[in-house]
Amino acid sequence: MKRASIVTIGNEILSGQTVDTNAAYLSGNLLSIGIPVVSSYTVGDDVDLIAQGLERACNDGDVVLATGGLGPTDDDLTRQAMARFLGTELQFHDELLKKIRQFFVRRNVKMSTKNRVQAYLPAGTRALPNHVGTAPGIMAEVKGKLVFALPGVPCEMQEMFEQAVLDRLKALAAEQAIVVRKLRCFGTGESNIAELIGPFMQRGRNPLVNCTTDCGVITLHIIAASKDKSQALEVARTEEESLRNVLGDLIYGTDDQTLAEVVGQRLGRQKKTLAVAESCTGGVLAKLITDVPGASRYFTHGWVTYSNPAKIMELGVDASLIDKYGSVSEQVALAMARGARKRAQADFAIGITGIAGPAGGTEQKPVGLVYIGVDSDGGTETKRFIMSGDRGSIRLRAAKNALNILRLTLHI
Amino acid sequence: MKRASIVTIGNEILSGQTVDTNAAYLSGNLLSIGIPVVSSYTVGDDVDLIAQGLERACNDGDVVLATGGLGPTDDDLTRQAMARFLGTELQFHDELLKKIRQFFVRRNVKMSTKNRVQAYLPAGTRALPNHVGTAPGIMAEVKGKLVFALPGVPCEMQEMFEQAVLDRLKALAAEQAIVVRKLRCFGTGESNIAELIGPFMQRGRNPLVNCTTDCGVITLHIIAASKDKSQALEVARTEEESLRNVLGDLIYGTDDQTLAEVVGQRLGRQKKTLAVAESCTGGVLAKLITDVPGASRYFTHGWVTYSNPAKIMELGVDASLIDKYGSVSEQVALAMARGARKRAQADFAIGITGIAGPAGGTEQKPVGLVYIGVDSDGGTETKRFIMSGDRGSIRLRAAKNALNILRLTLHI
Repeated sequence: MKRASIVTIGNEILSGQTVDTNAAYLSGNLLSIGIPVVSSYTVGDDVDLIAQGLERACNDGDVVLATGGLGPTDDDLTRQAMARFLGTELQFHDELLKKIRQFFVRRNVKMSTKNRVQAYLPAGTRALPNHVGTAPGIMAEVKGKLVFALPGVPCEMQEMFEQAVLDRLKALAAEQAIVVRKLRCFGTGESNIAELIGPFMQRGRNPLVNCTTDCGVITLHIIAASKDKSQALEVARTEEESLRNVLGDLIYGTDDQTLAEVVGQRLGRQKKTLAVAESCTGGVLAKLITDVPGASRYFTHGWVTYSNPAKIMELGVDASLIDKYGSVSEQVALAMARGARKRAQADFAIGITGIAGPAGGTEQKPVGLVYIGVDSDGGTETKRFIMSGDRGSIRLRAAKNALNILRLTLHI
Repeated sequence: MKRASIVTIGNEILSGQTVDTNAAYLSGNLLSIGIPVVSSYTVGDDVDLIAQGLERACNDGDVVLATGGLGPTDDDLTRQAMARFLGTELQFHDELLKKIRQFFVRRNVKMSTKNRVQAYLPAGTRALPNHVGTAPGIMAEVKGKLVFALPGVPCEMQEMFEQAVLDRLKALAAEQAIVVRKLRCFGTGESNIAELIGPFMQRGRNPLVNCTTDCGVITLHIIAASKDKSQALEVARTEEESLRNVLGDLIYGTDDQTLAEVVGQRLGRQKKTLAVAESCTGGVLAKLITDVPGASRYFTHGWVTYSNPAKIMELGVDASLIDKYGSVSEQVALAMARGARKRAQADFAIGITGIAGPAGGTEQKPVGLVYIGVDSDGGTETKRFIMSGDRGSIRLRAAKNALNILRLTLHI
């Protein structure tokens, strides 16, 4: 099995000003294609230290992924360090400069002379295109090992990894056929899932089942290995079937599907439309829905009625309901959903109201209390939640739970 | 100056299942007491690899902080690895076992026999008390260097660091005081900033100025060192003043402020209200605004008018404008802002329309084209952008640019 090592470059990581999310992103993605990460080094913006990090990583793994230090400023030293590590010189590439120039032309911005350094590559290496920023990545082969230098900005790094690195690594991992199938679950906790599928998660099995969790979404990674691809596929398929028998509706999707994608697919298939009315989530639910390309086919209207007058005026919520039950109540959540559905003439509507904190909680209505109402031709449904975590995670969990309620409604 | 190195221990970090926030926590805290972290290693649950990591860290720094691997299960190997690194044996400590037992008694839970291993320490080292969990930490002195092994669970690690480690390190660092001040910039590229403040960013200066970037926001870190805290503060203050003279309005805030926070503060101070009408950003702008606790003081209404009928019906956009100029146009962005301001009776309103992609672009109106309109008593303003990146980053940059336009409007 091929192994990987990661080098994270940047003083901002060592000074604690930035949390290194790139390493976790890369590790998770590498694991999914069957290349486990065996070591990870963080080094400062220093040519010698970066070169040493690359050296060590190259000793540990068959693949090295470095992030950071490709920017245009004087403390971006990955190009030089890589040249030192490879024992070669930097070379200027006119076609890279052209691409960098085009980036600025498209934006109608003057290119700084500083950006010129980004057109240099260590001799014998190849550029990886950057569609998000200016810095090209670098790919090198040394002693039969593959070394990639990617930008440190997460969105640039991820785009480059997916576009220019992933397929190469998949091919590398292909000697032993590894099939990874992810099952996405929502609606219960990790420990409960672990209890339900305990026997599946034992170490050393083939397939291996790993479990990761991210803000309410629990992902089961089925990793099946075999000499032969179709054999590995079959092993993964059988395992998926067994897991589905145990987990049922807790599994909402596969691979990289989000709840919003699954809801969107079901709405699209059933030719139904959706409107949302948000209070405490303040746009998070609409954002998740419209993160999905093509959401305009089923999503037409969203309201962020952050004030009571907005709830009354825009959604026709009865003022007396707010007086009687408070704006954070089952009744108001449902009235918001009903109002949104009516105004948007939609088939389904969701209303959310709650207390995202950090202030505004009481003993009766604590921070984290959220009501979600769903209105449709088929009737209405409301649910009450007490979410834990900070403001950001309360809001995100509330929006995801709303999508999950709708998913289960659309299932029927 | 004393220097530190970090060793993070655990397969869950290398597999990407957990983002390593401990390293960032420790790095930030060490920097603020004047002990910069110069390297950081992540290793799996393996005695040899952990011992090698400790060895390397000890070569790099005067202080080594290791986290993880102190739990009771078979893959918790930091105790053994530390003993190997120190060339010594593990010793059982009865008084440690008593403390671990007390932990379970207090919680009225039966202690597992597994926990017994946590009462062992490498010979010649000292235990650090754990007030949150069962695993004691370990402190060792080797070749004049201080090595600490702390638990991996963040809350346990932080408590132990603050209670049992921080004062020791402060005493070690007392020779020097470090002050860090962050300036947040928006509205131009990193390379342009680097050109404007080139002389400030030279290496080896005191204060040091580092530059990091995250989806359009550029952060300048001023790191001032001095024998004396008030002297360091003064050095940082003077540097900030000079940077402000050069960058002016490009600096929108300090330390961890977001654009939405700064806009919110200005709206609050001026007792003004804000409404937003979003098409392509689909709720991202409302989300950023309501990420700020207390946003309800100035933010009342948001619309996600994802369809043309929604723009017409909810915001009173003239259908003929859409016919004539298209829904992605300066005219429609402005009409959305005007409609939102009127309906919400707000002082300011923002309208955003654009093409977030990946589909829907044409030669005339490519993916990434975004129009932002702002309407207020003071008049109207519209701006046209071509954003690069994927759907997510186009949407996020569009929303941030909208906040930035409003920030500059509110400045006047």
